[in-house]
Amino acid sequence: MIIVFKPNISQKDEAAVLKAIKRLGYRPHIMRGVARTGGGAIGDELKNKSLESLITLFPQAVESVMPVQKRFKLVSREAHPTNSTVKVGDLVIGGRKIHIMAGPCSVESEGQLLTTALAVKAAGATLLRGGAFKPRTSPYEFQGLGERGLKLLAKARKETGLAVITELLSEDHAEMVSHYADIIQIGARNAQNFQLLIAAARTGKPILLKRGLSARIEEWLLAGEYVLANGNPNLMFCERGIRTFETYTRNTLDLSAIPIIRNESHCPIVIDPSQGSGRADLVIAMCKGAVAMGADALLIEVHPNPAEALSDGAQQLSPQAFAQLMSELKPFIEAAGRE
Amino acid sequence: MIIVFKPNISQKDEAAVLKAIKRLGYRPHIMRGVARTGGGAIGDELKNKSLESLITLFPQAVESVMPVQKRFKLVSREAHPTNSTVKVGDLVIGGRKIHIMAGPCSVESEGQLLTTALAVKAAGATLLRGGAFKPRTSPYEFQGLGERGLKLLAKARKETGLAVITELLSEDHAEMVSHYADIIQIGARNAQNFQLLIAAARTGKPILLKRGLSARIEEWLLAGEYVLANGNPNLMFCERGIRTFETYTRNTLDLSAIPIIRNESHCPIVIDPSQGSGRADLVIAMCKGAVAMGADALLIEVHPNPAEALSDGAQQLSPQAFAQLMSELKPFIEAAGRE
Amino acid sequence: MIIVFKPNISQKDEAAVLKAIKRLGYRPHIMRGVARTGGGAIGDELKNKSLESLITLFPQAVESVMPVQKRFKLVSREAHPTNSTVKVGDLVIGGRKIHIMAGPCSVESEGQLLTTALAVKAAGATLLRGGAFKPRTSPYEFQGLGERGLKLLAKARKETGLAVITELLSEDHAEMVSHYADIIQIGARNAQNFQLLIAAARTGKPILLKRGLSARIEEWLLAGEYVLANGNPNLMFCERGIRTFETYTRNTLDLSAIPIIRNESHCPIVIDPSQGSGRADLVIAMCKGAVAMGADALLIEVHPNPAEALSDGAQQLSPQAFAQLMSELKPFIEAAGRE
Amino acid sequence: MIIVFKPNISQKDEAAVLKAIKRLGYRPHIMRGVARTGGGAIGDELKNKSLESLITLFPQAVESVMPVQKRFKLVSREAHPTNSTVKVGDLVIGGRKIHIMAGPCSVESEGQLLTTALAVKAAGATLLRGGAFKPRTSPYEFQGLGERGLKLLAKARKETGLAVITELLSEDHAEMVSHYADIIQIGARNAQNFQLLIAAARTGKPILLKRGLSARIEEWLLAGEYVLANGNPNLMFCERGIRTFETYTRNTLDLSAIPIIRNESHCPIVIDPSQGSGRADLVIAMCKGAVAMGADALLIEVHPNPAEALSDGAQQLSPQAFAQLMSELKPFIEAAGRE
Repeated sequence: MIIVFKPNISQKDEAAVLKAIKRLGYRPHIMRGVARTGGGAIGDELKNKSLESLITLFPQAVESVMPVQKRFKLVSREAHPTNSTVKVGDLVIGGRKIHIMAGPCSVESEGQLLTTALAVKAAGATLLRGGAFKPRTSPYEFQGLGERGLKLLAKARKETGLAVITELLSEDHAEMVSHYADIIQIGARNAQNFQLLIAAARTGKPILLKRGLSARIEEWLLAGEYVLANGNPNLMFCERGIRTFETYTRNTLDLSAIPIIRNESHCPIVIDPSQGSGRADLVIAMCKGAVAMGADALLIEVHPNPAEALSDGAQQLSPQAFAQLMSELKPFIEAAGRE
Repeated sequence: MIIVFKPNISQKDEAAVLKAIKRLGYRPHIMRGVARTGGGAIGDELKNKSLESLITLFPQAVESVMPVQKRFKLVSREAHPTNSTVKVGDLVIGGRKIHIMAGPCSVESEGQLLTTALAVKAAGATLLRGGAFKPRTSPYEFQGLGERGLKLLAKARKETGLAVITELLSEDHAEMVSHYADIIQIGARNAQNFQLLIAAARTGKPILLKRGLSARIEEWLLAGEYVLANGNPNLMFCERGIRTFETYTRNTLDLSAIPIIRNESHCPIVIDPSQGSGRADLVIAMCKGAVAMGADALLIEVHPNPAEALSDGAQQLSPQAFAQLMSELKPFIEAAGRE
Repeated sequence: MIIVFKPNISQKDEAAVLKAIKRLGYRPHIMRGVARTGGGAIGDELKNKSLESLITLFPQAVESVMPVQKRFKLVSREAHPTNSTVKVGDLVIGGRKIHIMAGPCSVESEGQLLTTALAVKAAGATLLRGGAFKPRTSPYEFQGLGERGLKLLAKARKETGLAVITELLSEDHAEMVSHYADIIQIGARNAQNFQLLIAAARTGKPILLKRGLSARIEEWLLAGEYVLANGNPNLMFCERGIRTFETYTRNTLDLSAIPIIRNESHCPIVIDPSQGSGRADLVIAMCKGAVAMGADALLIEVHPNPAEALSDGAQQLSPQAFAQLMSELKPFIEAAGRE
Repeated sequence: MIIVFKPNISQKDEAAVLKAIKRLGYRPHIMRGVARTGGGAIGDELKNKSLESLITLFPQAVESVMPVQKRFKLVSREAHPTNSTVKVGDLVIGGRKIHIMAGPCSVESEGQLLTTALAVKAAGATLLRGGAFKPRTSPYEFQGLGERGLKLLAKARKETGLAVITELLSEDHAEMVSHYADIIQIGARNAQNFQLLIAAARTGKPILLKRGLSARIEEWLLAGEYVLANGNPNLMFCERGIRTFETYTRNTLDLSAIPIIRNESHCPIVIDPSQGSGRADLVIAMCKGAVAMGADALLIEVHPNPAEALSDGAQQLSPQAFAQLMSELKPFIEAAGRE
C-alpha cells in the first residue's frame, strides 16, 4: 500500500499513522518528497486488511491510500504465462480455431431450435446457444421454457453434433443445467452473483462469464477468480457491451477488452456482438472487429424468424444473414492467422 | 406502440408492415406527417410481443419503434395513489417519522455489534443494520460470519429492541435469513437477480431493494415489481449511488431518485449515503440532502472502530460521528415536516 | 510520483528505470515490498514531466505510475483555508446569505424579460439570469438575441436593481458581454474551452464556471485554476448535472459536489437544478437538497409562459411555481443556518 | 411529435392540450389505445417549437412527448445517399485507400518533428499530425509552440510531401491555422464549441471533427451539421473514445461508431486509437479492429522518444512500433477490400 500524507502534517500525527500501519500488519516505510510526504506500508495486501480506513481515522493527516498489488491471482497471466484453453468435447476454445456459438436468444420450440441449429451448423458454427431460463427485466415477459428447453437443447445436440451453451440463473438449478449443458453461461445481471458463480464452478463444467452491465475489467477478472478459486479452471470471459450514455446502441461493445484480457489473463476471450449492440444490423461489423482484435470465439443470436421471437427480436440474425456473416468473416479470420 | 417509418417508404412496404403489426396482435393506425409517416400499433403492450423486431424485419421501411405504456403496474402510483407504508413490528416506514437504520457494514463479533447497537440506539436509530453474508468483489476478502452473524443480530435485537435488517445473498438461505431478520435487504449486485428477489418475496418479510450499480430507475421499479407480483406488498426502494466516471466518490448518490420514486411509485424510499459516497466525511451532508428531499429512512454504516473494520472501513462512521450526525439532522427533519 | 514495478523485474531493468527517473528530473527511492517492488520519484510534479511514459518505455518492468500531488493550487483550500466570497455590487456570494439567480433560459423579448425579472424579484431573487448567446445542439435552433439580448438585460437591471448573469460563448464577445453583465457564465459545453476561460478571466468580472457534461471534479477544479491563474480571483463553481445512463432525467445532478468542492476549494458553490434535471417538477426538491447540503446560491430558470419558451421549455418554472419554491425553501435555509 | 396522455385524462384536459398543440403550429391527431390515449402533432419539427413543454404545462394530462424527425439534415445519408469524399491535395479520404495520419501529440522541436515525419512517411503514412496549440487540463502543462509549431509543420510538409493536420483551439487563430494546415482538427473538448466550429468551417479547409468526451452520436452529427450548414462540405468524423467508468483505459474507444456513422451519414469516419485508449500497447489491436470495421483513416500518435514527450507520453508509439503496426495492419486492410 502507498500512503500519501497531507502537506504540513504534524510529527505527532505522522507517528500515530505509522503506529496504526504496524498494528494493521504492515511495515511502514517513509519517503519525504518535495511537496508531499508519503510512504509505503509493506505487507501482503491480499492477506492483510486494506488501509483505506486510515483516511477516516486520520482525516487531518492522510490524503490517500493506494493499493499496489493486483487483487486477482489465479486468472492472472502472471500465474499462468501461456494461454489456457477450454476443452468442450473435441472442441478447443482458445486455440488456433475461432469458434462460433450461435442460436436463438430463447429456446421457444423444437421446430425453432432445430431449424436454427441445422442452419448455423451448415454455416460453420460449432456450438449451439439457447436460453432455457431467461432473466427478464419485467416479471411479465417470457421467462423461458425451463427444463423443457434444456431437453430440447440436448436433443438438438444429438441431432447436429453441436455442443450446447446455456445460461444458469439459479443456484438450485446448477445440477440440472450442468446435466444438459456443455458450457454454463453466467449472464451479465449475475456477473457479481458470487453464490451462483460458486455453484456453477462446482459443477466442473466450463464456464462462460459475461461482463456485468457496468463492470470494471478488474471486477470481471475478480468474478472469474471466484470460479478458479472454487476448483474449476475452465473459464472463458465474454464481453457483451457496457452501459453508457449512448442511445443508438443498447450497450457499447468494449472491444478493447480483448487485448486487455489477453494481457492480464490466460483465459480465452469471447465476444457477444448481439447483446453488445442490440441491433442486428451492427452485428457483422462488430464480428469483423472482434476477430481482427483477437477474440477466441463469438456468441451470436440467430432466430429463424426474428420478428416472431419471444425475446430480443431486434438483435437476432436470420439464418440467411448469419450465413452471410460467416462468409464475410472468412478473410478477417485468415488475416488474424486463425482458422 | 408508436412506429415511425423511414421517409419515402413504398406503398408495398407500408402494407407489409401493417400486415405484420396485425399478425403480432395489434391494430395498426396510420398517421401521415409532414416529414415522416408514422403510426400507432394499438394493443396491450404488456400482453403482446414487442414490435421492436420490425426494425430488423423491415430495415428499409421502419426507422424506430417506441413503446408508450409503462411496464410496471403494481409498484406504480397509478395502481395505488396514496403512499404505502411498511410495518416492522411497531415501526411504520413511509409515514411521518423518518427512520434511521444504522450499524456496521459486517457483523464481526458480539462485542462489536452490541457496542454499535447500543450507541446507535442511544443516538436515536430504530433499526440495526449488519451484514452476516457479504458479497465481496474478491474471493479473498472477508465473506461474513454467516448464520453466526444472524444469531448475533437476533441477540442484539433482544438486548436493544432495535429491529434488524440484513442482506440475503443466496436463494438457499431465504428461509434462514427470514427467520432472524425483520427486513431482508437485496444488495446492489443482486438487484436484477430475479430468482433471489422471488425467493425473498415469498418469505413474506419486508424487502429493502437496493438500486443496481448502474440500474435505470425503470429497471429498479421493474425489479420491485417482481416482489409485489410474487405476493409481497412490503417493499422499500433504496438508492445507494450509481456508477459514473467520477473518482472522488466511490459512487454518485442520485438524490433525484427521491422525488422520482415518489412520483412513480407508492413505496417508501430509503437513502444509503455510506455506500452512496464511500466516504465517511460526506455522509452528514448527504443525509441532510436526503432528508430535505423527502427520504423516508436512512441506512448508515457505523462501526465502533472504523480503522479495524473487516470491510469498507473508509465509509463507516464512528459512534461519536453518528451522534453528531443525528444532532445536525434534527433541524432538517423539522423543516421537512417529519419526525 | 509512485512507481510500481512488475513482479520478477530484472536488476538490469530496475537500474534502467532508475536512470530514466533521474534523467526526467526526479530522485528515485526504492521500496521493496512483499509481492511487489515499488518506489518513489521525488520531485515537484507540477514542474517536471509526468513519468507515465515509463510504462511505454519499460513495458516489461513498470506496471503503474501514480502521481501524488494535487494538480490544482490557486483554487485549493490549502492555498486559501477560509472561504472566499465573490462581491457583485452590494451582494456577497459565499457568505451567510444564499443568493437566488433566476430568470429565463433565453432572453426573448423585453416583455418576457421584464415580467420575469419583476416576478423573481418580488419572490426574493437577487440576480437575474438570461441567455443572450445560446449554445444549441442543432444549428437550426434559436441561437439567442445577441447584443440586443444583453441590452434588454441591462434595462431590466436598471428597472429592478437585480444584478445580471449571462453566458459568454465566444472569445470575440468577451468585451461586449463584460460591458453588460455583472457575472459572466461559462457553460457546460465550454467547460474545457480554455481560450474562452482565459478571455473571460481577463475581463475581471466574476466568473460562474459550470461543470462540464462529464467533467470529473478534478478537471473542473483545474478549469477554475485557469481563471485564477489569469489574474481573476472572483470564481464560483456551478454544478449542473452530469451525464449518466439514466433516462428519467436529462442529467444526474451530483449534489455530492457541494461538500467535495467545499473540502477541496475555497470558492463558492452554486447549484443549477434546472439544467441538472431538465424537469420543472423536480426543481423544488433539488433546491431543498442543495440548500441543506450547503450551496451558496441557486441558479433557476423561470419563464412567464414555459410552453411558449424558445428553448428548454420543459425545465422552466412559471412565476407562480417559483414563488411557491421560494416559500417552501425558507425552513431549509433556516435549518442550514443561512439567510 | 408523438404525445402520450396519462391514463384517465379528462375530456377538458384533452381539449386543452389539443388547442395548445394547434397554437404551437402543429395539427393534432388523436389515437385511442388500449391502455393509453396518445396522438400525433403533425408539423415540421425543425421549423416549429418543441412540444416538450406540454409536460410542464399540463402535468396532469401529458405523460411524454417524443420527436420523430431526425434533427440533422445535411450530414445525413438521406441527404446524400452515396459516400462523400474529402480531397486534400492529391489525397482522397473516404475512397478505397485507407489513410494513415501519424505524428507527435505536440510539435516540440524541428528535430523531433522532422525525425517523426520521415519515419512515418517511410512506414506508409500520408498525413502528418502534430499539435501546435494544445488544450491542456491544467494551466501548468505545456500549451504548445503556437505559430512556431505551425511553421515547423509547414516545413515538414515541404520536406516530406506529407499533408498536415493540426488542431484549432481559438476562433482568433482560424485564419492563421488555416494558412498552414491542410486539415483543421476540432478536438474533443471543443466538440460543442459551436463558435469555433463556425469559424473553422468558414476557412473552407477540410475539418476533422472529434467526438466529444461524452457526446451522443446524435450530438456529434449535429455538431457536424454546423460545419455543413456554414458552407463547408469537407467534413470527417473522428471517434476518439468516450468517457466511461472503466479505469484500465483512459477512454473507451467506441468502434461501433464506424458502422453507425456509415449508416447515418455520408461523411468519412476516422479512428484515433491513441486518444481512444491512452495506452500505446493497445493501439495495434485497436487499429486492426478499426480497419476491419470500415474506418476510412487512422490518426496515430508517434514520437521519436515517447518517454521524453512533453504531452501524453504513455500513448505515443515509437517509430519502430509504428512500422510494426503498419506491417501488421496490411492483411486486415486487404481483407477489408481497401488499399
